[in-house]
Amino acid sequence: MLFGALLKHVVERGSLRVIDARGRSWTFGDGTGRPLTVRLHDRGLHLGLAINPYLRLGEAYMDGTLTIDAPGDIYDLLDLVLGNLGTSYPSAAFKLYAALRRAKRRIDQHNPIGKAQVNVAHHYDLDGGIYDLFLDADKQYSCAYFAHPGMSLEEAQLAKKRHIATKLMIEPGMRVLDIGCGWGGLALTLAEETGAEVVGVTLSREQHKVACARAEEHGLARRVQFHLQDYRTLEPSFDRIVSVGMFEHVGVGHYPEYFNAVERLLAPSGIALIHTIGRLDPPGATNPWIAKYIFPGGYIPALSEMASAVERTGLFMTDLEVLRLHYAETLREWRRRFAARRDAAARIYDERFCRMWEFYLAGSETSFRHEGMVNFQLQLARRIDALPLTRDYMYAHERNADALAARPRLRVGE
Amino acid sequence: MLFGALLKHVVERGSLRVIDARGRSWTFGDGTGRPLTVRLHDRGLHLGLAINPYLRLGEAYMDGTLTIDAPGDIYDLLDLVLGNLGTSYPSAAFKLYAALRRAKRRIDQHNPIGKAQVNVAHHYDLDGGIYDLFLDADKQYSCAYFAHPGMSLEEAQLAKKRHIATKLMIEPGMRVLDIGCGWGGLALTLAEETGAEVVGVTLSREQHKVACARAEEHGLARRVQFHLQDYRTLEPSFDRIVSVGMFEHVGVGHYPEYFNAVERLLAPSGIALIHTIGRLDPPGATNPWIAKYIFPGGYIPALSEMASAVERTGLFMTDLEVLRLHYAETLREWRRRFAARRDAAARIYDERFCRMWEFYLAGSETSFRHEGMVNFQLQLARRIDALPLTRDYMYAHERNADALAARPRLRVGE
Repeated sequence: MLFGALLKHVVERGSLRVIDARGRSWTFGDGTGRPLTVRLHDRGLHLGLAINPYLRLGEAYMDGTLTIDAPGDIYDLLDLVLGNLGTSYPSAAFKLYAALRRAKRRIDQHNPIGKAQVNVAHHYDLDGGIYDLFLDADKQYSCAYFAHPGMSLEEAQLAKKRHIATKLMIEPGMRVLDIGCGWGGLALTLAEETGAEVVGVTLSREQHKVACARAEEHGLARRVQFHLQDYRTLEPSFDRIVSVGMFEHVGVGHYPEYFNAVERLLAPSGIALIHTIGRLDPPGATNPWIAKYIFPGGYIPALSEMASAVERTGLFMTDLEVLRLHYAETLREWRRRFAARRDAAARIYDERFCRMWEFYLAGSETSFRHEGMVNFQLQLARRIDALPLTRDYMYAHERNADALAARPRLRVGE
Repeated sequence: MLFGALLKHVVERGSLRVIDARGRSWTFGDGTGRPLTVRLHDRGLHLGLAINPYLRLGEAYMDGTLTIDAPGDIYDLLDLVLGNLGTSYPSAAFKLYAALRRAKRRIDQHNPIGKAQVNVAHHYDLDGGIYDLFLDADKQYSCAYFAHPGMSLEEAQLAKKRHIATKLMIEPGMRVLDIGCGWGGLALTLAEETGAEVVGVTLSREQHKVACARAEEHGLARRVQFHLQDYRTLEPSFDRIVSVGMFEHVGVGHYPEYFNAVERLLAPSGIALIHTIGRLDPPGATNPWIAKYIFPGGYIPALSEMASAVERTGLFMTDLEVLRLHYAETLREWRRRFAARRDAAARIYDERFCRMWEFYLAGSETSFRHEGMVNFQLQLARRIDALPLTRDYMYAHERNADALAARPRLRVGE
């Protein structure tokens, strides 16, 4: 079995047993750790998994043609394989495969104004009930900030919003733009806690509807407006711009367009904060399973790609925070919550959807633990003197974190 | 006069008068600010300054064929011109010139092990008395960290060393490598304040001699060793690596070699901190006057260039601080001190050397004020979990800055 040869090459540590569709059995690893048994139920996988593992593994799991014996699960399998693989891909065949996929990424990620909405709808216009099953009550669908050990997901998402607000130095009455506002939680918190006026834009009809309703419910509709609009069609200017978990959808060919728009929309003394997943590896291509089933058009940027695009604008990169493992912790909690309410998800969609979502959450978490994925917070300004000389202002604020944590929080539908 | 046409294009704000070698006079700008008068005393400059201003301006000032009427000085001229120019270079001719210079930068910056020492000797083996005239007593020849407003240069250089030590999380007994150790001030402070063992390397004989003598004087020779050695020939491993003001000499073609060496020399759980001037502009070329007279082989990196090289190693970039204007403030103080002791400099070398040094310090300061130059502090690690999840540890320490500032300081020759 060719897939077996591949695994033998990769799995040095741990205990993995694979039983193929003919009933033949192989073991891999050094026998340490909890034994994990994987069963293949379709002979087509014997070749398919070897040729295109990054696509076919997820598909086989979704289809139920690959199963893992309890108490093991798909997370354990990905953790074992990727933990062995790390960020090094030894084989020449893999390198060729990666180069080919990278060569066509500008086509895959072509994201003009019309297509962007289609790509967004694929994920964010899912039945909103799905997101309620695993996100926090504020529906923060991005990396939380575990400011202190032992924080709950709810606390860490609030800490994330406040960490961002602090870096933006928002003052009452300022005009703030939120590019990719999701269900509106960040915009509402910024308006409530800083006294700013916030404009949020999204391309998801589902998110826009929810965000508008929340602004009304919280009596913030006068200061917070949500538009179903592409950020590229906005008019200047804003004192502050924030963009959380949206840059992953921009596509590598559109980075100059994105940063030129930020520059155009930002006031001369303005500050922007871009919060995005990033790769510490070299530029690459999007995982093919993720691109097909979860985020069409999506791409995780390398810092060299973002920096190169920023350098060619009139924007200065004034700070970069690299949030390591915070997203792994966020995803672990999402995965735990989803597992606990799996039956409800199956009622909204079906069993195959549940397995797709499990694979998505487990695969994402392991990529942050083993594949060099992190979360970047890029701070940008148009003037070299727009910010204080030291980063103390980012931390002076958070010394009062415990006091802040006691303040009221926004929830969907409150 | 072609130089006049160039200035007319550039100088929109301010009051500049130029009197050429034939006695003809031009005025530029909008008449605001303090009037500044520049005199050309050589007809060759009329064309030369227009064709290659970045080289010829500095040469004319050194030669005394370009003078500025008191109380104006060379800083005022550069501040006026570069303040108008900013980071935008409008003319097509300039872009062509920049592209040509960029094309040959790999040749200019070719820096193999033998040549590196020649390049270093050009600057750092100058008579040590020159550096005593304008640096602080500890001879910190890099960007200071003005942690609080109103800090003296001495205090800000100490704050810089402690800011770096904090980011490195050095513990007693650790082995620390200082690549490009200068006159040894950082290595001695780290050893004294953290209890670490430090190895410093430099290619400057003059610096090496001074650094070794200081280690003896301070009774630290057992824990601090200085070697006259290229970092590429060192053997692993070190718990911590620090490199301050050295990366500017690496040359863009050698970045992979540099970061591969850092990875090779760093222990698996290690942390490295690279402190270097950076450009927020796109990759470019070294100012030709600087390359010819001050730093042969030198180059100020763009973040995209550093990130691209780091991504291709097994190192993770775990933080980036962008120190804006700290170096401008450092240079302002160096310039003030040099001016106050100019006679002593002229006695060591001559009048032309003094004008060269004035141009160097003034040009460097204005590049940090107007040309998008900054100082990067890149933190690197080999493991994604080598550091705490948040940056709080960098700032918790500095809350005690005032208490620390009272501790004894190292001085050359004490």
